[in-house]
Amino acid sequence: MTTKIQNLISQMTLEEKAGLCSGLDFWNTKGIERLGIPALMVTDGPHGLRKQKESADHLGLHNSVAATCFPSAAGLASSWNRELIGRVGEALGKECQAENVAVLLGPGTNIKRSPLNGRNFEYFSEDPYLSSEMGANHIKGVQSQGVGTSLKHFAANNQEHRRMSIDAVIDERTLREIYLASFEGAVKQSQPWSVMCSYNRVNGEYASESEYLLTRILRDEWGFEGLVVSDWGAVNERVKALQAGLELEMPSSGGIGDAKIVAAVNSGELSVETLNLAVERLLTFIYKAVDNQQENATFNIDDHHQLAREVARESMVLLRNEDGILPLSKQGTVAIIGEFAKKPRYQGGGSSHVNPTRLDEAFAEIQAITGDAVELLYAQGYELDSKEINEVLLQEARETAAQGKVAVLFLGLPDSYESEGYDRSHLSLPESHQALIAAVAEVQRNIVVVLSNGSPVEMPWITHTKGILEGYLGGQAFGGAIADLLFGEVSPSGKLAETFPQKLSDNPSFLNFPGEGDKVEYKEGLFVGYRYYDKKEITPLYPFGFGLSYTEFQYSDLLLSASQMNDAETVQVTVTVKNTGSRPGKEIVQLYVNDVESSAIRPLQELKGFQKLELQPGEEQTVTFELNKRSFAYYNVHLSDWHVESGAFTISIGSSSRDIRLYTSIEVESTTRIAPVSFHRNTTVGDLLVNPLTADRAKKYSGIFGLEDAMDDNPDMFEAMMKYMPLRAMIGFGLGKYTEENLAEDLRELNALVAEQ
Amino acid sequence: MTTKIQNLISQMTLEEKAGLCSGLDFWNTKGIERLGIPALMVTDGPHGLRKQKESADHLGLHNSVAATCFPSAAGLASSWNRELIGRVGEALGKECQAENVAVLLGPGTNIKRSPLNGRNFEYFSEDPYLSSEMGANHIKGVQSQGVGTSLKHFAANNQEHRRMSIDAVIDERTLREIYLASFEGAVKQSQPWSVMCSYNRVNGEYASESEYLLTRILRDEWGFEGLVVSDWGAVNERVKALQAGLELEMPSSGGIGDAKIVAAVNSGELSVETLNLAVERLLTFIYKAVDNQQENATFNIDDHHQLAREVARESMVLLRNEDGILPLSKQGTVAIIGEFAKKPRYQGGGSSHVNPTRLDEAFAEIQAITGDAVELLYAQGYELDSKEINEVLLQEARETAAQGKVAVLFLGLPDSYESEGYDRSHLSLPESHQALIAAVAEVQRNIVVVLSNGSPVEMPWITHTKGILEGYLGGQAFGGAIADLLFGEVSPSGKLAETFPQKLSDNPSFLNFPGEGDKVEYKEGLFVGYRYYDKKEITPLYPFGFGLSYTEFQYSDLLLSASQMNDAETVQVTVTVKNTGSRPGKEIVQLYVNDVESSAIRPLQELKGFQKLELQPGEEQTVTFELNKRSFAYYNVHLSDWHVESGAFTISIGSSSRDIRLYTSIEVESTTRIAPVSFHRNTTVGDLLVNPLTADRAKKYSGIFGLEDAMDDNPDMFEAMMKYMPLRAMIGFGLGKYTEENLAEDLRELNALVAEQ
Repeated sequence: MTTKIQNLISQMTLEEKAGLCSGLDFWNTKGIERLGIPALMVTDGPHGLRKQKESADHLGLHNSVAATCFPSAAGLASSWNRELIGRVGEALGKECQAENVAVLLGPGTNIKRSPLNGRNFEYFSEDPYLSSEMGANHIKGVQSQGVGTSLKHFAANNQEHRRMSIDAVIDERTLREIYLASFEGAVKQSQPWSVMCSYNRVNGEYASESEYLLTRILRDEWGFEGLVVSDWGAVNERVKALQAGLELEMPSSGGIGDAKIVAAVNSGELSVETLNLAVERLLTFIYKAVDNQQENATFNIDDHHQLAREVARESMVLLRNEDGILPLSKQGTVAIIGEFAKKPRYQGGGSSHVNPTRLDEAFAEIQAITGDAVELLYAQGYELDSKEINEVLLQEARETAAQGKVAVLFLGLPDSYESEGYDRSHLSLPESHQALIAAVAEVQRNIVVVLSNGSPVEMPWITHTKGILEGYLGGQAFGGAIADLLFGEVSPSGKLAETFPQKLSDNPSFLNFPGEGDKVEYKEGLFVGYRYYDKKEITPLYPFGFGLSYTEFQYSDLLLSASQMNDAETVQVTVTVKNTGSRPGKEIVQLYVNDVESSAIRPLQELKGFQKLELQPGEEQTVTFELNKRSFAYYNVHLSDWHVESGAFTISIGSSSRDIRLYTSIEVESTTRIAPVSFHRNTTVGDLLVNPLTADRAKKYSGIFGLEDAMDDNPDMFEAMMKYMPLRAMIGFGLGKYTEENLAEDLRELNALVAEQ
Repeated sequence: MTTKIQNLISQMTLEEKAGLCSGLDFWNTKGIERLGIPALMVTDGPHGLRKQKESADHLGLHNSVAATCFPSAAGLASSWNRELIGRVGEALGKECQAENVAVLLGPGTNIKRSPLNGRNFEYFSEDPYLSSEMGANHIKGVQSQGVGTSLKHFAANNQEHRRMSIDAVIDERTLREIYLASFEGAVKQSQPWSVMCSYNRVNGEYASESEYLLTRILRDEWGFEGLVVSDWGAVNERVKALQAGLELEMPSSGGIGDAKIVAAVNSGELSVETLNLAVERLLTFIYKAVDNQQENATFNIDDHHQLAREVARESMVLLRNEDGILPLSKQGTVAIIGEFAKKPRYQGGGSSHVNPTRLDEAFAEIQAITGDAVELLYAQGYELDSKEINEVLLQEARETAAQGKVAVLFLGLPDSYESEGYDRSHLSLPESHQALIAAVAEVQRNIVVVLSNGSPVEMPWITHTKGILEGYLGGQAFGGAIADLLFGEVSPSGKLAETFPQKLSDNPSFLNFPGEGDKVEYKEGLFVGYRYYDKKEITPLYPFGFGLSYTEFQYSDLLLSASQMNDAETVQVTVTVKNTGSRPGKEIVQLYVNDVESSAIRPLQELKGFQKLELQPGEEQTVTFELNKRSFAYYNVHLSDWHVESGAFTISIGSSSRDIRLYTSIEVESTTRIAPVSFHRNTTVGDLLVNPLTADRAKKYSGIFGLEDAMDDNPDMFEAMMKYMPLRAMIGFGLGKYTEENLAEDLRELNALVAEQ
């Protein structure tokens, strides 16, 4: 603690200390004028600033100062580009400085458990490694500008349905390997200035009151040094939350939370030390912001718009390209159909909603890059604000489409389909959009669909199309980026950060989403996203890590720096990738690890590395990955630690999770000294037989059981019966030949053997 | 308690009482000569007696006296014929009387959670209703002859893997609705003389030591009046087991368990009353057997063999019949291929293994009923005792098959694939069998496969076939029954009592079978069997309830005795079924119930009634089902009771679970007075808004929250936010407009409103 902060705390009254623990209003922390402690402004917006104008009511979401709207997280993650998301972070940081905003409330690294979650567009991935890498680099970018972040929503806030009262029931291993791991990597790599706790309960306890989450795991295990802030309204009992490690309640509680803290200190329920620690963290946070504040900072709107376009290009995923229909040539007549081409859906609803500095429309942008060479036609196709099928618009679309060499259909989910606050109930496009595809397909065989949506949709209409470009919610430069990709200015290079299922019921959480009453049980456990589709052998519509390019890549020379290692060491994995096509392009090289044999139930493969490469035609590059203990480990709840089970692991290199190009294997030896097994009356004979220490002694039991006599009849069965038999059962089956005293003696001897080790 | 038993107990020493609580040896209970208390003999075998010869060692399974071997339970259940399984029970009872056997150890009503369970052939179904109906009628049949049964293995013994140490972790609702319900119906309907506890643990506790299972549920809730016996070797701690309600330990523990009981009484750990109660039940059981013993009982081997043939015919399921290839005409050349045609697999391995009085071979039986009209050829095809593909036999099979108008292939699982003691690891036929189909398909387009197996197999070879007859393990008259069905002596009338999946990974337990270490978590919950395939929209290879016939049935006139009812009433459902084909046949009419809207997660449909009808061509019959509370209820863990949620239910009548012919709906009103809701600080505004009592008062919160101001921006979101908002969050969002005192006052008023009701 610095002397300055120490001094301040010593001068503060109990009421001032308590007061610092909640906000002044919706978007500002409290200052203390008497001591010169300033207030700070925070704003929503992981992919763009949402600073409320002072005239606006506190909730009004659309009345914010203009800011660059980048693609939302679902798109950003599809870029798999650490450097690029870092640049987005930098740009956001610059905009915050220009607007005197101290902390940007984001990014969100919740895992996409179900595609129905209304807020999925704000999250990165179904995979914790990809999610945490994207989160970490976003945070590094913002914070490099002297602006804080708030990593949210910690933890297990994976649905909007009853989000403020729901209890997410999750076994510890799943929590550790999936839902917490997504935060863990980001915290450890990037030290966000703050972490925002979520609304929901986790295993019975409000996240805002969970010492387990906010202190034991976040601070003690992960080494988090920042501040914990509540999601707006997430505090249930103020004092309990403070004790659990939540320093800042937002928004203001009108002094109510503060008064509770004062009363608790006075009654002795809350110690002054606990309050002082919270105040110390708050002051550290406040002065970090103050010290990093830049006077008269500005940013260049054009540059940031250009960055938004670059990012949007890398965020889109080419899902389908039959007959090489894309890129389109810059000649002939092209029918552009669908109102989204002129009124883009480029961001989601809720706290992340940005008032953009500019807004590209796809139709105009296509016109700009094709010029006179292409005749562009347009038909509206559907009404944005209506769910009804409009037959007049459909007929117009048919006529327009029939005149083009190709019809590009702009489809997707209208605003009301996806938003903070509520979940979807299905994965369908609006009926009017589906009817449009069917209508156009009557007259046009060359259909390209451009999708605007924040989360997967079902595609029963897929066979009508030759091309599908998943645009996600592409931010304010969506239109320009689409034009670039459609006409081959650049090659698509995004890959899915989530599985697109063939149908909703394929999703692993389907049987248990969004729960019963105020309880949702994560019964699918570890098997989230591709971990489920892989193991269950379900063919997804499009798998995790999938995305097409206009060029082609060849993989070769997969090499390891060692063929065996122990889990305290690291290993380097190299692989060479070559652009064998005729266009420049970027490839996302993915590394998956599989434990060949495990006593624990494990997924068939898990992402443990990725690199995005830019390659000119004919160019090749060698990528290096480094793997460490964590790359091979699972969370062992008995050890309360990550653990590598000694043995062989497969290392696979793929262009997607289902397009593995090369694989090799490595032997990894655990360095963890596991406490010796203690044998007991229910230890099975089989467990003794497979243990080299005890195998010899275990052989006698077959005699007691009478196994030799029985083996003639059904050897497989008797061998299995013997194997699964607890030692105490010898007493019954031995019909008096084996006693409790024999058993006690045997256990003494067996445990002595182990102790000698 | 009768005076006789009272007298006996009063004369017994502590040692004699304790001694009565365990067996004399493997197959006999203890007698007490001094008091004239006789010993009883018990034997394995729900589908046939397995009485050890006295010369045999205790485990030798094949050295038993000859007895009729009926189809095993998987087949019996496929008959869906209550009356027929009752007749099997009667026959078994007669054979027991003839052999002086007091108790037959069966039937088994464990649920088929996974098709891999090595003992599935001994169990009935994946559905608890069908399973319990079959169990109940089996028990009634046996016990009608004055012979006891032992309903097993209670409970949740759904795998052989580590069966003596595994802990089955199952949530209470799943346990009640699926795994226990299968026993519950049988106990309540048929009062088995004894119930056998299983080897495994259930939620941490050995079944043998579970007062919850053995006393509170079995006796107190279900009214079981008999004796609880341990599975052989299932007792862990003898005294704890006795206290839990397990009277009889089997086999003998050589006096060790008895000595522990004596010591526990002497030390005061165990009360004499508890021991006396156990002895009373033991003596009641013993004298029931003695009183029912028939001197010089005999049975007619021929009659029982004939019954076995009749049962086998109804137990087989015609799965596929392209181009009406079956029944075969009694002319031309028929190639019979596969060693199973001459060396049948007709029963499973383990404790149920019977030494049959006779054994029909299919080839000989086909010859017998076709006579000279058909030229029968034979090729061995594969070697029973080898997994290797034998090219010489394949070539011979090709040549033989090419000469027939049709080739009938006898395939299935050899003994070593399915047995008590261990589970399967895959669902494939042996490679040699698969190679045989492929080889024959090269030369013959008319292939009929007859399967001998106890549990589903995958059929990647299905397109090579025109007919598939699932024979299960058909007992000693399997061969004759097959001949009858293949040549149309009778029409097939069995239907699947379990889903045949397309692949193993489709099975609901796949991700969690057989568990990790000594713990298996039933994470699929209620979604077992068709409950899972239906909800997850997975197309099975063959669905639950499916089976073809040589004739056709038309359904009509679905009528209810009332269109609404309360849950204390019953309703009659009638439907008319007509044989519209040209052959006599039997149809299994199935009734499924669905709760149209429920606050609980429920399956899409559940079997709640079935009837098997025999109909001559042109004949029609009207079936009546009676539905009661239980038909509509789910187990509500908060109420600790079965509960019907008031509202509409769909009643569907089908020929299979996926061939629903007629449906209607009924309104059911609950008569359960649910304790009034108590409102609390985390009650959501939405929960108040949907409650007619409180809706009006809840409207004010939108003003406190500032909802009206915000609605212009994103009405759907703000409405949802409001709906999911706990009352206490008004304090923070109200920014001082709403206080803890306001909240306390509101809660007082709201709860008063409810209390007034």
